[in-house]
Amino acid sequence: MKKTLPFTAQQLTEIKTTYPTPFYLYDEKGLRAHARKFKQAFSILPGFKEYFAVKATPNPFIMKVLKEEGFGADCSSIAELLLSEQIDVLGEDIMFTSNDTEQDEYIKARELGAIINLDDIRHIDYLEHTLESHGGLPELLCFRYNPGPLREGNAIIGDPKEAKYGFTREQLFEGYKLCQQKGVKRFGLHTMIISNELNPDFFVETASMLFELAVELKEQLGIKLKFVNLGGGIGVPYLPGEKAVDYDYVAQQVMQEYQRLIIANDLDPLKIYMECGRVIAGPYGYLITDVIHMKYTYKDYVGTNATMANLMRPALYGSYHHISVMGKEDQAESHCYDVTGSLCENNDKFAIDRQLPEISEGDTLAIHDAGAHGHSMGFNYNGKLRSAELLLREDNSVLQIRRAETLDDYFVTLDFNQLQTFK
Amino acid sequence: MKKTLPFTAQQLTEIKTTYPTPFYLYDEKGLRAHARKFKQAFSILPGFKEYFAVKATPNPFIMKVLKEEGFGADCSSIAELLLSEQIDVLGEDIMFTSNDTEQDEYIKARELGAIINLDDIRHIDYLEHTLESHGGLPELLCFRYNPGPLREGNAIIGDPKEAKYGFTREQLFEGYKLCQQKGVKRFGLHTMIISNELNPDFFVETASMLFELAVELKEQLGIKLKFVNLGGGIGVPYLPGEKAVDYDYVAQQVMQEYQRLIIANDLDPLKIYMECGRVIAGPYGYLITDVIHMKYTYKDYVGTNATMANLMRPALYGSYHHISVMGKEDQAESHCYDVTGSLCENNDKFAIDRQLPEISEGDTLAIHDAGAHGHSMGFNYNGKLRSAELLLREDNSVLQIRRAETLDDYFVTLDFNQLQTFK
Repeated sequence: MKKTLPFTAQQLTEIKTTYPTPFYLYDEKGLRAHARKFKQAFSILPGFKEYFAVKATPNPFIMKVLKEEGFGADCSSIAELLLSEQIDVLGEDIMFTSNDTEQDEYIKARELGAIINLDDIRHIDYLEHTLESHGGLPELLCFRYNPGPLREGNAIIGDPKEAKYGFTREQLFEGYKLCQQKGVKRFGLHTMIISNELNPDFFVETASMLFELAVELKEQLGIKLKFVNLGGGIGVPYLPGEKAVDYDYVAQQVMQEYQRLIIANDLDPLKIYMECGRVIAGPYGYLITDVIHMKYTYKDYVGTNATMANLMRPALYGSYHHISVMGKEDQAESHCYDVTGSLCENNDKFAIDRQLPEISEGDTLAIHDAGAHGHSMGFNYNGKLRSAELLLREDNSVLQIRRAETLDDYFVTLDFNQLQTFK
Repeated sequence: MKKTLPFTAQQLTEIKTTYPTPFYLYDEKGLRAHARKFKQAFSILPGFKEYFAVKATPNPFIMKVLKEEGFGADCSSIAELLLSEQIDVLGEDIMFTSNDTEQDEYIKARELGAIINLDDIRHIDYLEHTLESHGGLPELLCFRYNPGPLREGNAIIGDPKEAKYGFTREQLFEGYKLCQQKGVKRFGLHTMIISNELNPDFFVETASMLFELAVELKEQLGIKLKFVNLGGGIGVPYLPGEKAVDYDYVAQQVMQEYQRLIIANDLDPLKIYMECGRVIAGPYGYLITDVIHMKYTYKDYVGTNATMANLMRPALYGSYHHISVMGKEDQAESHCYDVTGSLCENNDKFAIDRQLPEISEGDTLAIHDAGAHGHSMGFNYNGKLRSAELLLREDNSVLQIRRAETLDDYFVTLDFNQLQTFK
């Protein structure tokens, strides 16, 4: 798949007259079109709902666009619950999947009516105790299943039996039974054992695994699950040659399994949920940065005014992010560069040994597929500030949906008056 | 070296009545005692000065303690320059070592009278142009040398010829000559090619390399350098069995080289600078966290109320940080645990397969050697908040030197009013 851009060099030049680089630019048109395609493909599954993984792009404007497209919110913390509340995504449109959870988080999730997805069997008692004066255990509960040695993960998320998440198989049965006794009425089942995966069959296997468990739960405990949440993990084809997951194929295969296991065992209606983040927002966000210094030493370096504080994936995971040199999209990729930021960390590089058109100071770069796990993973190391986020609207206007950090923001947790008298 | 603690379990319990966990706790007594030992050992070197690498612990209270011990500040950004200004570390007590530098940073460095250390030969013209209406080029300039294939790095900082930093050897000579012509009067020479290194001979080799260059610069250009900055990179013995670098040994060996190369060639006085951060602050900071959930699945997990948002090194580099279970320091390390945070990242672990005393919910953990590149590398992924920093004073009182982040801080770059009308 060739990497394309939803804006022109001329458009960027105009945007830059109002907003200094570096900034994130999200493509609303692309985001919406893809969200519709995604929803359309999976709508053949009974009661399908996608809960957008807020951690990928915790910007409430993006979340509101996705809400309009019918998505709920997958939240992992109190901050993310509050963002959902701000855009009126409430009740069972929120899936609260956390681990090692604090009491105030469960209380907020309960207050919002979110579907609480427990990570551990011991959290049943903890939740009951926590919610004693907050309405008690909710009527609906979901458990996260970790198949451990019964399933392999992938390179990014690792071996399930080394993963801190979820219930073992035995605990799952024990947990549902316990919650039945405690009066919980409706149940869901969740798993998340893969990340950034492009093999479509993996998602089908996950569905089969959960459907088989649904059958066993009915047989052993008489529980008819209300939903299964297949998790997220659909990958972004970051590399130009990579093939995106075929949603129609996955949906059809999952539907076949649904017929074979769910309908055949009289377990329908069983709703199917997903909680993708990366593939929903990733391809529709760009980090825009200017080249401020060229450097020629043992290698040729393109020094930008962004850093790994703005986008950490290449430094953290060695991830590939495609780079377009604005206005030079059609030029031959005749030069080999390391594209760097200004952090005093040698891994502060957006690309290593990348073939690009010849670059000069003043050129503008668009770093692709930065819309998920991009801005959200930024830090302030070396005193660097996180950038603004802009939304390119469908009418080509631009809206700032998060301002850039200032030095005052950076210093806000320090008391300089106290510092003066400190000795 | 056995890992010890500068506070008791009882003291921590008292501190926790005022400050909720997680928090960083810095040991002023240990910090000062070590700073004196460090300074004492290297004081045999002519004009020795240590510039504390602010990026390690960008807290102005810590910086002020180190200022009182005679340390300057090694700054890499405008934020760090402003922190130095706040504690009146000014002029040539600041070393400004950046790369891919922006104009406002050079202007601020010049305004403060900092020693500007250029990363690239092309920055000479850039600096001159930038400072045209800000006093012009300073009288003193320093260049950062990257030996490239002439020297090996270590695992953490990597191969020098793959490093984005510094001048090549040829550029160095060319650069000094150019600056002589432009009227710069005094020169320094800097390098930084190693990080977290425990082999003392490495630092001696670095000194020899710079001294040899000093001789050549005199011979070829008639320049008598005012100082060489050996960089930082002295490691912390994170593992209990590791041996700290012997400062006296390094100082004595460097002094021998000084006599052999500098005095013998009539190049003295040549001042010797260093810019350690990690070894200065690292061992004197502890991340204090409470165990909120025990979990028993395919492995046994200790779930704390801190996350990699508080301390990223184990997740990012697989780094070892020693852990003490408060009140159980003398118990047998009979249990094997993964010690985790609550992030939805499976690498959010402070320790993997670590032998520790049996742990229960409510136990308090002290994570050692977190005083450098700890709090400073924190991010807000998953909507997590960065913790407070506390200083344990020499009289055992406790001073909060950075407050914890709040949800309001987390949301400060968002405009919720605008969000309401957004559609």
